[in-house]
Amino acid sequence: MSEYIFGVDLGGTTVKMGLFDREGNVLEKWEIVTRKDEGGKFILPDIAASIKAKMNEKGISAPDVAGTGIGVPGPVGGDGTVFKAPNLGWGVFSVKEELGKLLDGIRVEAGNDANVAALGEMWKGGGKGFNSLVMVTLGTGVGGGVIIDGRILTGSTGAGGEIGHMHIVDGEPDTCGCGNSGCLEQYASATGVVRLAKRRLEKDDAPSSLRAASNISAKTVFDAVKAGDKVAEEIAEQFGEYLGKGLAAVACVVNPEAFVIGGGVSKAGPVLFDYIEKNYKKFVFHGCSDAKFTLAELGNDAGIYGAARLVLS
Amino acid sequence: MSEYIFGVDLGGTTVKMGLFDREGNVLEKWEIVTRKDEGGKFILPDIAASIKAKMNEKGISAPDVAGTGIGVPGPVGGDGTVFKAPNLGWGVFSVKEELGKLLDGIRVEAGNDANVAALGEMWKGGGKGFNSLVMVTLGTGVGGGVIIDGRILTGSTGAGGEIGHMHIVDGEPDTCGCGNSGCLEQYASATGVVRLAKRRLEKDDAPSSLRAASNISAKTVFDAVKAGDKVAEEIAEQFGEYLGKGLAAVACVVNPEAFVIGGGVSKAGPVLFDYIEKNYKKFVFHGCSDAKFTLAELGNDAGIYGAARLVLS
Repeated sequence: MSEYIFGVDLGGTTVKMGLFDREGNVLEKWEIVTRKDEGGKFILPDIAASIKAKMNEKGISAPDVAGTGIGVPGPVGGDGTVFKAPNLGWGVFSVKEELGKLLDGIRVEAGNDANVAALGEMWKGGGKGFNSLVMVTLGTGVGGGVIIDGRILTGSTGAGGEIGHMHIVDGEPDTCGCGNSGCLEQYASATGVVRLAKRRLEKDDAPSSLRAASNISAKTVFDAVKAGDKVAEEIAEQFGEYLGKGLAAVACVVNPEAFVIGGGVSKAGPVLFDYIEKNYKKFVFHGCSDAKFTLAELGNDAGIYGAARLVLS
Repeated sequence: MSEYIFGVDLGGTTVKMGLFDREGNVLEKWEIVTRKDEGGKFILPDIAASIKAKMNEKGISAPDVAGTGIGVPGPVGGDGTVFKAPNLGWGVFSVKEELGKLLDGIRVEAGNDANVAALGEMWKGGGKGFNSLVMVTLGTGVGGGVIIDGRILTGSTGAGGEIGHMHIVDGEPDTCGCGNSGCLEQYASATGVVRLAKRRLEKDDAPSSLRAASNISAKTVFDAVKAGDKVAEEIAEQFGEYLGKGLAAVACVVNPEAFVIGGGVSKAGPVLFDYIEKNYKKFVFHGCSDAKFTLAELGNDAGIYGAARLVLS
């Protein structure tokens, strides 16, 4: 039986790569630069060359490789077609086929990076032991990945799990990156928490340690929450209400066993759950109220784990 | 090859039953009464007896039957376990196993009735040709069924597709049947449209044909819309905003190819789409804006079709 799997997490700056065994143990990790010149045409050949070099180095022959999985920063269809990935300069084509050819027929599976990270967390991270979960990545934006019965829910146009663009607030004056306004991402991302904090601080003169901060971030807000700052607690409450409400809406669609919370904002730790879970339970349909909340554990490695796991799906 | 399938739609008053061929042609339809006495213990034996009688009548032997599918009014797990069905007096047990025993080993598949109806519409109704869709039943309540890659999304506790209980409006004074308030069902069901109508009419004295109606229903509202009544149009706009917003939220989770709209309110016909689709497009993530909207076509037969289709899943 083929004993190795390559997991590739293709980002806008670097490509993270991992060599795994079938049990999901990472045997080696490395990175290469993402060459975006000329419409990103070098990216897949660079990845293939790096995989082949690793195979040579380790004395691994093609039949020893069960496959290569790759996470791509853009919508990817169930058949491995990337619809577009503007960050890479890519248009519409089959990553699965192209990379497969470059790897001389080694099996390739492709998915959207957020969805693939969700699969990684299910396999070896905060979602271990769950078979259906929603990963929520609170980073620069809010990403989502829906896993049902151990498989990614891709969606008909690769937009499954785009929960950051769920409409949550009416009358929001700022425009979201997607062009709409009032999206979950505008309140629950790292920049969203800052938006909520600034608005709260401008509202009145209530004393808060945040007023002395030279640069407010999601971290300073949650650090202040932990220190008992009342204004910071109000901001966290507002964040929790919007996110809890959004996840309650997600639950009444896919009814997952668990929500796995990752991304920069999640570094605040379990204090987040005080605000998210309370509000989730307030808004959710009773049949979904037992969903578990866990923190992501794999950090930047979720992508390579999930990409490797794609091969076993 | 086994050529017959039985489809059973178990309701609180009657059990609808159908004999199908594998292509989904209904060869015969009939009904029996749902005997709810003594905790509903007669229901499955009655169904089994009726199926056996039909087999006798038609000269069908067990090896000719590919299986029996059954839709149940309550949450049903992926393994055919009913979590509870209070309308029937049922607790937790495996319908799949019980009915299978009563049918002397004929294969049985079970699902929640709303989900099963969605499968029926995909197979032979308004969702024909789509592989992933969300069925939205606007009846006494708002039911939902999510189909992904031709299969029901059951959810971890059988609450997948419970979109009627998505929180849509803050500050709603009335309580929903589920115990929360502000649920989609409170505005988009038949009674929800009446709620919106009454509130609009109470707001001011604007002239409207609805003021003369002895009993306002969803039908009178949409009939008035078709007749050009401005107040009725405002009510429909409100209905469309809430439902469009809700379905946009559903889309950014599961990104379906289509929404199939059924239930009593859907009898208003295509005029509904003027209000639902416009608002859907306003709130939805751009990657999901191409979803199609269709009307359900099978009416009360969706359940028996979908139940039969369960056997082929």
